[in-house]
Amino acid sequence: SSLSAGTGGLVLYDLTSSAPHNKEFSPHCVKTLMDLKLLDVGYDRQRLTFTQVRTDLAKRVGDNAATVPTLELSDGTHLQDSWLIANWLANHHPKGNALFPFPSSRPFAASLNAWGRSNFAAQLRSLTRPPIHDSLTGESKIYFEQVKVGKQKLEKMRAMTQAERDQQIQNCIVALEPIQDALAAVRESHNASAGSLSTVPLWLEGDQEPTHADFCVYGWYVHSRSTGPTITREIWHALPLVSQWVNALNAWAGNEITKDF
Amino acid sequence: SSLSAGTGGLVLYDLTSSAPHNKEFSPHCVKTLMDLKLLDVGYDRQRLTFTQVRTDLAKRVGDNAATVPTLELSDGTHLQDSWLIANWLANHHPKGNALFPFPSSRPFAASLNAWGRSNFAAQLRSLTRPPIHDSLTGESKIYFEQVKVGKQKLEKMRAMTQAERDQQIQNCIVALEPIQDALAAVRESHNASAGSLSTVPLWLEGDQEPTHADFCVYGWYVHSRSTGPTITREIWHALPLVSQWVNALNAWAGNEITKDF
Repeated sequence: SSLSAGTGGLVLYDLTSSAPHNKEFSPHCVKTLMDLKLLDVGYDRQRLTFTQVRTDLAKRVGDNAATVPTLELSDGTHLQDSWLIANWLANHHPKGNALFPFPSSRPFAASLNAWGRSNFAAQLRSLTRPPIHDSLTGESKIYFEQVKVGKQKLEKMRAMTQAERDQQIQNCIVALEPIQDALAAVRESHNASAGSLSTVPLWLEGDQEPTHADFCVYGWYVHSRSTGPTITREIWHALPLVSQWVNALNAWAGNEITKDF
Repeated sequence: SSLSAGTGGLVLYDLTSSAPHNKEFSPHCVKTLMDLKLLDVGYDRQRLTFTQVRTDLAKRVGDNAATVPTLELSDGTHLQDSWLIANWLANHHPKGNALFPFPSSRPFAASLNAWGRSNFAAQLRSLTRPPIHDSLTGESKIYFEQVKVGKQKLEKMRAMTQAERDQQIQNCIVALEPIQDALAAVRESHNASAGSLSTVPLWLEGDQEPTHADFCVYGWYVHSRSTGPTITREIWHALPLVSQWVNALNAWAGNEITKDF
C-alpha cells in the first residue's frame, strides 16, 4: 500500500501563477514545502498553474477534483491535502515526529489549520483575490474569475473603497490575535521554567525548531504576500510577536523558498 | 508576595444576572469555575451583578476597572483575568500541571482563548446581547445598555431580521471549525497509536481529563446559552464532534455548575 512506501523519489506538485512566473501563493502548498524542509526530504518540485492542475495533474492522479499540494510517492500513488501529507510524513519519516512533537500537537495544529481557512481567510480574501487574478493569464485567469471566485464577487472586491480595504486589514489583525497570544504564552512558559532553554523560543509550540503548527499559519502569511508589501506589512507586522515570528520563519525558510513569494 | 500564598481560603467573585437570579453567562468566569473543579479546590463563591462588580468589588480590589473572575487569596491579594488565574493555579497548586499538561498546552489554550474573544465572539455577540440585557434589572441593565454595549448597537441587534439572525448562526458554526478539526485530530492520533488509551478521548488535548484548553472554549458555550435552547442547539450541535464534546463537558461539569446556565 502507499503507506508502506518510503520518502525517497517524491514528486511535489505545487501551485504557481501563469508561466514563466514562479510565484508561490497557495497557503496549503507552503505548509508542505515547509514540512519537507523541516524533515530535510529531497523531492522533485513540479510547479503547475490552475489550468495544469485541472488538466495534467487531474489526469495523472485520475481524479477530476485533484488539488495541490499533491505528493507522488515512488510507487506512483498520490497523497492530496496538506494535512494528510503532514500526517503521512509524521507516520513514515524517521524524524516525522518533529512535525507534531507533543501529545497535543495534532489538535493544536488542526485548530490553527481550520482557523486559517474558516476565520482568517474570511477576512483576507477580498484583499488577495484581485491581485492573484492579476497575476494569472489565459485559462487559469478565466477559471479563477469564473469558477473559483465568481465574476460578480471579484468585481465587488475590486470596487472596495480605501475605507473598506482598511476595515478588512483591521479585521485581519484582530483575527491574528490567537497567534499573538499563543506566542506570548510560549514566552510565559519559558520564563516560568527559568531558562531551561538557552534562548527565548520563537515558535508556536515553544520547541527549538518550528513545527507543523507554525507552517499552518505561515501558509496564510505567504498567501497574504500576493497583496504586495504594504498590506502584508500592515497585517503581519502590527502585532509585535507575530511580526518577530514572521521574520524568523522567513529566515528559517531561506531564499530557496522565499524568493518566490 | 501573593504568589507564595496557598490555595486554601479562596474567594471567587463571579458574575450573575440581577438578584435573586443565579444565571451564569460570563465566558471568563466559567473558565475559572472549571479550573477549580479540575483541581478539586474549595472556595467561597460570591455571585455579583454588573453593578456590584463596579461598586463592591472595585472597592474591595482597590481598582475602579475591576473585572470578574477575581480570585481573592487567603492573604487578601486579588488575581484578576481567567488566564492569569489559570497560570497562577498551574504554578501553585500541587496538581496544577493538569491545567496545562503538555509542553505546548499553554500556547494551544492561549490561541483558543483569543479565538473565543476575537473570532467566535464577533459572530455570537449580536445573538447574546439582547437576551442578556433582558435578564438584567436596575443599574446593571443601564450599565450593560449604555456603557458595555451602547444603546444604538443594542437596538440594531434587536432589530435583526430572521434571515440576518440565521446568517449569524451560520457564521458561528463556521467559526467553530477549529474546534471540530482539533477534536478530529485527537481521534486521528488515538487511532494511529492503536488504542494506547482504553477509550476514545473526548477532550481537546486528547488526555484523560479536560484541560484549560477545553475550558477556554466551553466558556463561550455557556455564554451562548443565554440565547436560549434553540439557538444554542443550532450553533453547538451542528458539528458532530463539537456536539459530543459539549455533552461530555456538561456531564463532567455536573449539576452544581450547569444548573445556572
